[in-house]
Amino acid sequence: MPAVRDLTLEERASLTSGADPWHMQGIEERNIPECMITDGPHGLRKAVASRSGDISESVPATCFPPAAGLSSAWDPDLVRRVGEALGEECIQEKVAVLLGPGVNIKRNPLGGRCFEYWSEDPYLAGHEAIGIVEGVQSKGVGTSLKHFAVNNQETDRLRVSANVSERALREIYLPAFEHIVTKGRPWTVMCSYNRINGVFSSQNRWLLTDLLRGEWGYDGIVMSDWGACHDRVAALAAGQNLEMPPTGTDGEIVEAVNAGRLDPAQLDRMAQGIIDLVDRTGPAMAIDGYRYDVDAHDALAREAAAESIVLLKNDHGILPLAPDADIAVIGEFARTPRYQGGGSSHLTPNRVTSLLDAMRSRGSAMTFAPGFTLDDDAQDPALAEQAVAAARDAQTVVLCMGLPEQAEIEGRDRTDFALPAKQIAVLEAVAAVNPNIVVVLSNGSAVAMDPWRDKAAAILEGWLLGQAGGAATADVLYGDVNPGGRLSQTIPLRIEDDPSMTIWPGENRQSDYGEDIFVGYRYYDTFDRPVAYPFGFGLSYASFGIDRVRVERTGPRSVRVSMTVTNVSDRDGAETVQIYVTPGPSSVRRPVHELRGFAKVRLAAGESREIGIDLDSRAFAYWSVPAGGWKVEGGVYGIEVGVSSRDIVARIPVEIEDDGVAAALDEWSTYGEWRDDPVGGPVLDRVLGEAMAETGRSLVPTDEHSAMMIFLRQTPVTGIAGYLGKRGPGFLERLMREYRGVRS
Amino acid sequence: MPAVRDLTLEERASLTSGADPWHMQGIEERNIPECMITDGPHGLRKAVASRSGDISESVPATCFPPAAGLSSAWDPDLVRRVGEALGEECIQEKVAVLLGPGVNIKRNPLGGRCFEYWSEDPYLAGHEAIGIVEGVQSKGVGTSLKHFAVNNQETDRLRVSANVSERALREIYLPAFEHIVTKGRPWTVMCSYNRINGVFSSQNRWLLTDLLRGEWGYDGIVMSDWGACHDRVAALAAGQNLEMPPTGTDGEIVEAVNAGRLDPAQLDRMAQGIIDLVDRTGPAMAIDGYRYDVDAHDALAREAAAESIVLLKNDHGILPLAPDADIAVIGEFARTPRYQGGGSSHLTPNRVTSLLDAMRSRGSAMTFAPGFTLDDDAQDPALAEQAVAAARDAQTVVLCMGLPEQAEIEGRDRTDFALPAKQIAVLEAVAAVNPNIVVVLSNGSAVAMDPWRDKAAAILEGWLLGQAGGAATADVLYGDVNPGGRLSQTIPLRIEDDPSMTIWPGENRQSDYGEDIFVGYRYYDTFDRPVAYPFGFGLSYASFGIDRVRVERTGPRSVRVSMTVTNVSDRDGAETVQIYVTPGPSSVRRPVHELRGFAKVRLAAGESREIGIDLDSRAFAYWSVPAGGWKVEGGVYGIEVGVSSRDIVARIPVEIEDDGVAAALDEWSTYGEWRDDPVGGPVLDRVLGEAMAETGRSLVPTDEHSAMMIFLRQTPVTGIAGYLGKRGPGFLERLMREYRGVRS
Repeated sequence: MPAVRDLTLEERASLTSGADPWHMQGIEERNIPECMITDGPHGLRKAVASRSGDISESVPATCFPPAAGLSSAWDPDLVRRVGEALGEECIQEKVAVLLGPGVNIKRNPLGGRCFEYWSEDPYLAGHEAIGIVEGVQSKGVGTSLKHFAVNNQETDRLRVSANVSERALREIYLPAFEHIVTKGRPWTVMCSYNRINGVFSSQNRWLLTDLLRGEWGYDGIVMSDWGACHDRVAALAAGQNLEMPPTGTDGEIVEAVNAGRLDPAQLDRMAQGIIDLVDRTGPAMAIDGYRYDVDAHDALAREAAAESIVLLKNDHGILPLAPDADIAVIGEFARTPRYQGGGSSHLTPNRVTSLLDAMRSRGSAMTFAPGFTLDDDAQDPALAEQAVAAARDAQTVVLCMGLPEQAEIEGRDRTDFALPAKQIAVLEAVAAVNPNIVVVLSNGSAVAMDPWRDKAAAILEGWLLGQAGGAATADVLYGDVNPGGRLSQTIPLRIEDDPSMTIWPGENRQSDYGEDIFVGYRYYDTFDRPVAYPFGFGLSYASFGIDRVRVERTGPRSVRVSMTVTNVSDRDGAETVQIYVTPGPSSVRRPVHELRGFAKVRLAAGESREIGIDLDSRAFAYWSVPAGGWKVEGGVYGIEVGVSSRDIVARIPVEIEDDGVAAALDEWSTYGEWRDDPVGGPVLDRVLGEAMAETGRSLVPTDEHSAMMIFLRQTPVTGIAGYLGKRGPGFLERLMREYRGVRS
Repeated sequence: MPAVRDLTLEERASLTSGADPWHMQGIEERNIPECMITDGPHGLRKAVASRSGDISESVPATCFPPAAGLSSAWDPDLVRRVGEALGEECIQEKVAVLLGPGVNIKRNPLGGRCFEYWSEDPYLAGHEAIGIVEGVQSKGVGTSLKHFAVNNQETDRLRVSANVSERALREIYLPAFEHIVTKGRPWTVMCSYNRINGVFSSQNRWLLTDLLRGEWGYDGIVMSDWGACHDRVAALAAGQNLEMPPTGTDGEIVEAVNAGRLDPAQLDRMAQGIIDLVDRTGPAMAIDGYRYDVDAHDALAREAAAESIVLLKNDHGILPLAPDADIAVIGEFARTPRYQGGGSSHLTPNRVTSLLDAMRSRGSAMTFAPGFTLDDDAQDPALAEQAVAAARDAQTVVLCMGLPEQAEIEGRDRTDFALPAKQIAVLEAVAAVNPNIVVVLSNGSAVAMDPWRDKAAAILEGWLLGQAGGAATADVLYGDVNPGGRLSQTIPLRIEDDPSMTIWPGENRQSDYGEDIFVGYRYYDTFDRPVAYPFGFGLSYASFGIDRVRVERTGPRSVRVSMTVTNVSDRDGAETVQIYVTPGPSSVRRPVHELRGFAKVRLAAGESREIGIDLDSRAFAYWSVPAGGWKVEGGVYGIEVGVSSRDIVARIPVEIEDDGVAAALDEWSTYGEWRDDPVGGPVLDRVLGEAMAETGRSLVPTDEHSAMMIFLRQTPVTGIAGYLGKRGPGFLERLMREYRGVRS
């Protein structure tokens, strides 16, 4: 592979855009191949017409569960194995870079791409999705961590400015990216369409250079989301290596360099990144004739799907079903499964198993009625009647409900939180004749559980489960697999309860993130609002106990949490232990608790195991805007061991030491802030005392609780200079000079 | 009075700051007197040491109900009469300008200065507080409309940036100012301490010049809040006439003019404003020996206080009390009334009547027990026991609860939404022996009503009632006055329910208004959240009926709402009819309804009257950011006639015509926006069609419902230019040129 210095200016420029919608630009005479890039990430969407923008037909591939499903497994190792399988499929298909994972925060359940994202919690999203990066790249194929950053809605996504505070960025919207970049080291990052606080991600130097490469040490390339690059020169200068798809504007780069508007060294850095990427993908792309094991991948997709299912309700142990149960299967979804979302991630599966087929293959006595159609047409009464008739004669009803495909599609946010009314009407009609109803849900993001929830004896939240979802659901229904999934997003009672709803999804090209750091359970738990099902929740056919919880300090700002987890039932299963940290008294607003660790513990019937989870200083930190960094305040924190954000089995106090990070005082710091600062306080007392003596003006009231003292404590020291008359005789300058002298 | 052109540069500069904390600077040799300015606005707080900043002692004055109380009267005429009385007191005290009214929005009940403000609703605030301006100024004395603008919290108020969207500014935070400036024409406006979207109000040219003087046609002066001016030159340039208190920096102005850093014409405009103000106040200040009628003002204060009381609950008609009822009066507030807030508005009343004295003077059988102290000390069990003993033997208990004075003070936001625990404990103890409890509340802003509400048979929300509050409360308790007050702010169930709480009161010198336009009932009603008592709510001893509601169109975008209001009881009283407007289908987020008119209708027992309320086009408008103005969308709106925001007695649809205001399309408007625009759509079709023909690229999918079409509709036309290759052969330029040609 040549170095960038061996190339002409025109060649260097050419590397920074694609050759066509799915290929990077190669340079044949320089021995730089055209690498193929393909949508994902829960499977390959390699277009049949790979040289055009036509995405209507794609090469068959294994359809693993989309992130909506897989994120509920809380199982990084499983995600990594899925990633390895994806890498193998890329090798066969000569795909150099698979576009994924997408780790944007599910800010609001209506987000049109929630089905592709992992969680409302950045810790969970980062610690799960990293498995895709590690797995795919272990096969020598690149990934693209996307959509960097703050791409949390589809409405106006190509233009909208996500206006978000520095703290919310650092604590909510960036940590999943940060974790995966620093620990998983993806080869590419895809910048998002939207603007962040007014600046397009593709032209955001702070984002692409200062933060990503500077703070986080990233050494891969940044490509634009498809159509996200509006100004090639500005994007290159900001740190975008690759424009996709190409707009035929390489000449603009050459002109800009020649005109002195673009630093040639920056072009070289960006082009060298492309060469390095091509180099990295070379060995895998050189493998010819590779064939992945289609059956093994289907089996993995089935395993992953089963692990993704969340059992929300199971009254009277109606599940698992007896092998010989007489069952009515109702709902078109049972026959026509909904297993992935619409848009760029929509792929052609190798095969698809419906739940109906999977159940029939087990040979139990079974009738089927579609109950409703998946289109938006009004209900056909005959379908409902047929469903009621089937239900009347059965022991148990398995009712498949969900969001039809057209409800969840990239490019469009959902407008309705409810399931289609005709489905709920069928449930109610069926419930009138048979109370033994198991609802199986297919939906890419949370849906309203009321008013229908009480009519179901059991609810399996299946999310979107990929091609083997039908088989996996049968595995869980019949108890071959004990459900161990946990909610990666809160299911609210009403969408109106979501704290972003006052401003969702924005207007006038602006989307203000007014709820700030209070996203998902951070809001519901801090403000004590009821939810349908809390974050981290999920039932099992087994029962578990957690005891002997201990917290030991492993450093001044780190701990190890240990406990014994026991399966107290006669059925194998998995418990997912969740560690939340509650803050001590804080100088800033903080959520009542935040997820800082988790472990999925698989235990045979009766088995007991001791586990330990380590928390480092970040588990206690918030982002300090004035200090420009993470800050751990000293004090007593709480370590919570829970099995959901609202089912905390132990809460143990632990003393954490202050990290000593302190923001510098300035002219606009208040009298109160100066007085309370260990360094600034004595300096202010001395300098102000002398200034008051010189001017003969007394500003400091003797009564510490007086209204005047309240006013003075609010007053910036620059204002105090004013009260000293004629802006004070050098008071402010002297104060700052002496403070800086003492502090340094 | 000289004109500004007759003055030297130094003299002109000198007029733009005060002489001392309570006087404008005069110029004796030019015959310009030093005018006195005094805090208010529910009475005069003229410092005894009027030349110093010492505010601890002030000259006695009538203490009318602060806005927390008076705003509940929903009676602009009453407010105007209070304003006239205030003007008379100013004449006696030689006060040229009374600092008030304060019409900032009660964004959050914890706001430390809510007791001085009028409402969570800008229409109500503007239409009530204008009476202060009209009343005072009718006497030839100036007012100062404050705090302009967006000063909704005390925390960090001297420095914080209120970050608020253009729509929330225009629809929530500015309309009360706009109404009073344009209709009441105050002689002065006081700019606020805080910054608005980063810019100090005192230096905000958009606020003080473009908006206030330009759009609103204001012809008075702008003075700084005390200490709000940080840069004299920048403030003058922005439109601030007067710095208060002075910082001795007039020389900076002279220097700036001489150095060409300040336009001398701007200095002249600002100084001329001062001269004009002095001129305006001249006649009233020339009146010597005037004495206002102290008794008449006290009587007016009593009338106003009685009108301010809101009856929240009255089970089994426990109120009014029988004249000979055997009553236990409990609570220190009965003896030591809480009748105003702390800080700059805290004045020395001419006299104060406690509720206990007022009741005793009626001669009914009565015992008293203080029950609790007003300090923060722990409860003294003996006090509680004494209260229980008194209650046990009485027919009825009048229990006075509230927030102690130190809980509500300018400069500090409240941190606790609850009443002090020891007061609630006394209520519970008393309730155990006597269920006939009438709670009388004294508090400057909403407090939690739970968990104690069920223990009270009746609740009188007295807010802060001024010096005659005790007598007025007795008037209402015994039925001499039939309570007619209505809530000017929602009383939430929990402070956590307030939509601003996720970010209240901000941090790092920033306060983001994330709830945007959804303040108060606009939030609670739109998002259907339960409240303790809704906006506009209040009971009466009488009963009323509203019928024959008609809505007639008086223009394409205006209506007259008529109805007959009947007192169906045998007791005189007042009903407050509230008109809310519900929007039709809208292209922007809108509250479910907004207050657009009201009328307090006093009716004798059995009396019936027809009333009419006119709504103009603003009643239907929202602020269109892209159009930069008010916009009325055509469609069917709902006219609601209610007696609270949650008790709507009639809802009548009315067709409103579109006002034709439309924002221009631009390069960043999307394909969808162009297509949907009646002017832009045909232009785009033609120009894009030709461009596709020229380039041979087909971008427009035939399937209107395809994912590609969703993507295309989101795409700004500047992005479409990119897809045409080499940024399109002049496509964008031609599109804009032809569009502008057709549109103009």
